[in-house]
Amino acid sequence: MDKRIKEHAEILTEWSTGIEEGDNVVISAGEEAKDLVIALQKEIGKKGAKPITLYSSSESQRAYLKNFEGEFETPEHVLALMEEADVIIGISSDPNLKAMSDVPGKTMAEYSKARQPIREEQMSKRWCGTQHPTNAQAQMAGMSLDEYKDFVYDAVLRDWQEVHDMQEQLKEKLDEGSEVYIEGPETELTMSIDGMIGINSDGDHNMPSGEVFTAPVVDSVNGDILFDKPLIHRGKEINGVKLKFEDGEVVEYSAEQNEEALEDTLDTDEGAKRLGELGIGTNRGIDVFTKNMLFDEKMGDTVHLALGRAYARCIGEDREQNESAIHVDMIKDMSEGLLKVDDEIIMKDGKFFWEL
Amino acid sequence: MDKRIKEHAEILTEWSTGIEEGDNVVISAGEEAKDLVIALQKEIGKKGAKPITLYSSSESQRAYLKNFEGEFETPEHVLALMEEADVIIGISSDPNLKAMSDVPGKTMAEYSKARQPIREEQMSKRWCGTQHPTNAQAQMAGMSLDEYKDFVYDAVLRDWQEVHDMQEQLKEKLDEGSEVYIEGPETELTMSIDGMIGINSDGDHNMPSGEVFTAPVVDSVNGDILFDKPLIHRGKEINGVKLKFEDGEVVEYSAEQNEEALEDTLDTDEGAKRLGELGIGTNRGIDVFTKNMLFDEKMGDTVHLALGRAYARCIGEDREQNESAIHVDMIKDMSEGLLKVDDEIIMKDGKFFWEL
Repeated sequence: MDKRIKEHAEILTEWSTGIEEGDNVVISAGEEAKDLVIALQKEIGKKGAKPITLYSSSESQRAYLKNFEGEFETPEHVLALMEEADVIIGISSDPNLKAMSDVPGKTMAEYSKARQPIREEQMSKRWCGTQHPTNAQAQMAGMSLDEYKDFVYDAVLRDWQEVHDMQEQLKEKLDEGSEVYIEGPETELTMSIDGMIGINSDGDHNMPSGEVFTAPVVDSVNGDILFDKPLIHRGKEINGVKLKFEDGEVVEYSAEQNEEALEDTLDTDEGAKRLGELGIGTNRGIDVFTKNMLFDEKMGDTVHLALGRAYARCIGEDREQNESAIHVDMIKDMSEGLLKVDDEIIMKDGKFFWEL
Repeated sequence: MDKRIKEHAEILTEWSTGIEEGDNVVISAGEEAKDLVIALQKEIGKKGAKPITLYSSSESQRAYLKNFEGEFETPEHVLALMEEADVIIGISSDPNLKAMSDVPGKTMAEYSKARQPIREEQMSKRWCGTQHPTNAQAQMAGMSLDEYKDFVYDAVLRDWQEVHDMQEQLKEKLDEGSEVYIEGPETELTMSIDGMIGINSDGDHNMPSGEVFTAPVVDSVNGDILFDKPLIHRGKEINGVKLKFEDGEVVEYSAEQNEEALEDTLDTDEGAKRLGELGIGTNRGIDVFTKNMLFDEKMGDTVHLALGRAYARCIGEDREQNESAIHVDMIKDMSEGLLKVDDEIIMKDGKFFWEL
C-alpha cells in the first residue's frame, strides 16, 4: 500500500479527530477508498476505538431517489447511530461525479431537508471530511490518477501544527481588524468585518485545509471584483465572473461563460445576492485549480468570497448572519493583488505580511 | 444489469422481509454486491422506506482486529442503529473468503462476544441473509463466475409460496412424529424428535432457503452415520466423516481426511459431542455442493445433522436445548437412503413421500 495512505489515516485519526479509546467512530466511504478505510481501521484498532463503515454510493442513492414514492422522513436508525457517535470521518471517493445528475433538484431538496437533523447531529461531533484520490476526481482535474495522487498528498501531508500557528497570525488580524480592502486586476472592493470572528481552519473539519475565514458585515460591501478562477454551482462551471456591490448587494454582474447560470444563482433568494464569507487560502501544496472546493478554496495565495449563507461561528454578538439556501464560493488569485485590513498590508503579490 | 439481480432484490424486499412504507432498513454489503445494492435501493425507494448501507469488508475488519489494543466493548452507536431498525438485509459478497485467516481465534471470540447484543437485536427484527455471486465464491465452488451466477439464481429465483406450502407437509410430519430412522450406506441411525418444533425455512431469514429443521431430543440419538459431503469448520474441510452415537453422544468417530480437525470440533465443549439439529433440504435448484452452507444445507434430497447448539425456536416446552459454542452442519446425500418418522416413509431414494 502507498505509504501516503497510512500517513493520511494517521492525520485523520490523530490530528483531525483525536480518536481515543472507546470512541464510537463512523466512517463513510465508497469502494474506491477501500485502501484508506483499511488504513483507518488499523489506526482505530490501535486506539481501541469502535468503528462502523457506511457504504457511500451516489449510484445507489440515485436508484433510491429516482424511484422513491411517498414523503421523505428522517431515518430514525441513522439518527440514532449519529447520536451515539463521537467521531465521523467522511471520505469523498465516488467513481462517477455525475452519477446524481438526473435526480430532480426538488427531490434532492426534499430528501436533504428530511436529513437535516442527521447533519446537525454530525456537526455537533468531532467530524472531518476528506478526499481519497480517485480516477473520477483526477479526470475532473484533468490529470492522470498518478499525478492526482501527488496533488492530493501534497495538500494533505503537511505539518498541521505549523499551519495552525502560521494561520493564527491571520486570524488575529481578522479578529482585531475592521476595514478590508482588496485590489487587483479589475478589482477594488471594500467591506467591514468589524465584530466578526475569524476561524483558523487547520485540518480539524476539512482535510486538506489551510484557510482562515470570517464573514463580512452584511451591508458593508462596496466596489468591483473579478474572480479569475471558475465558479462551480450545481455542477455548472461559470467563468470570468465580475460583480459590482453597493451596500452589500450585487447590483451588476457579468460572466465570460455561463452568465445565465450566474443569474440563476443570484436569483435563488435575497441572501444569494450578498456575501456570507471572506476566506484566505494558505495551502501552497495546492497550486492548481481542480474543480473540487475542498481543495480549491484552500489554494495558497488566493482569497475567496461566498455568495449566500454565512457560517454561524463567524458571527459576532449583535451581528447579522446572512441567510440563504446557497453558499457558493468564488475564488480570486492574489499572486497579483493586495489585501489590506485597516490600511495594514496582509497579502501582497503572493506573499503574506510576515514574508514581506 | 442482469435482470436476475432485480428479481433477487424483489424477493428480498417483498417475500423475505416484507418492506413497507416508513421501515428503517439496514443493508450490509461489500463492493462486489454493488449491483444488488442498487437494485435493492430501487425497490426500497418504491416502498417509501428508509435505507442505510453498511460497508462490509473482511479485509478492513482484519486490519482492525489484527491491530486492536484494549478490551472489546459493544459499539453503542451500532447497537442504537440496530435498535431503531425494522429490517436487516445482509449480503455476503466478500472478494476473498480467506481474508480473515490470520486473525487469532481468541481475538475473533472476544470481538464476537462484545458484539453479541448487536446480533440479538438484529435477530429480533425482520432479517435475511443472502449471497451475491462473486468470483471468490465461484472459485470456492470450482466454477466460472458465469456458471456460478446460474447456480445462485437457480437456487434463489423460485416460487417461495409454493416452497412454503410443500415444506408445510414436512413440518407437519416432524411436529406430529416422534421416532426418526435414517438408513443409507454405512448408516443406521435413530433419534427422537418428540415434543420438538419443526421450522419451515421458506426464505424469510435465508435466501436461498428450502429446508425444514427441528432438534433431536438430546439423549435420544443412537447408531451410525456416514456423511458423504464435506464438513467445513473454521475454514477446514473434513471428508468422509463417520460418527457412532450412544444415548445422544458421539462415542466413536473417524474421517477419511482431516480427522484431527474433527477431533478438535468434538472436543470444543460437552455440547459439541451431541446433535443440535436435524434438517431436511428441499431446494432442487441446488444440485452441487459449493462449500457455502447457505446453499449446501438446502440441497434437495439431503439431510443434515448439526453438532452443537440447537435453535431455541425448535425446542418444545419442558425439552432441553443442547448448548455449545459451535453449530457445525454435516450433510448426507439421500439419493440412496431412507428417512422414516414413526415407521412412515418421509424420504426414499431422492423422493419425498408425496412423490412416491
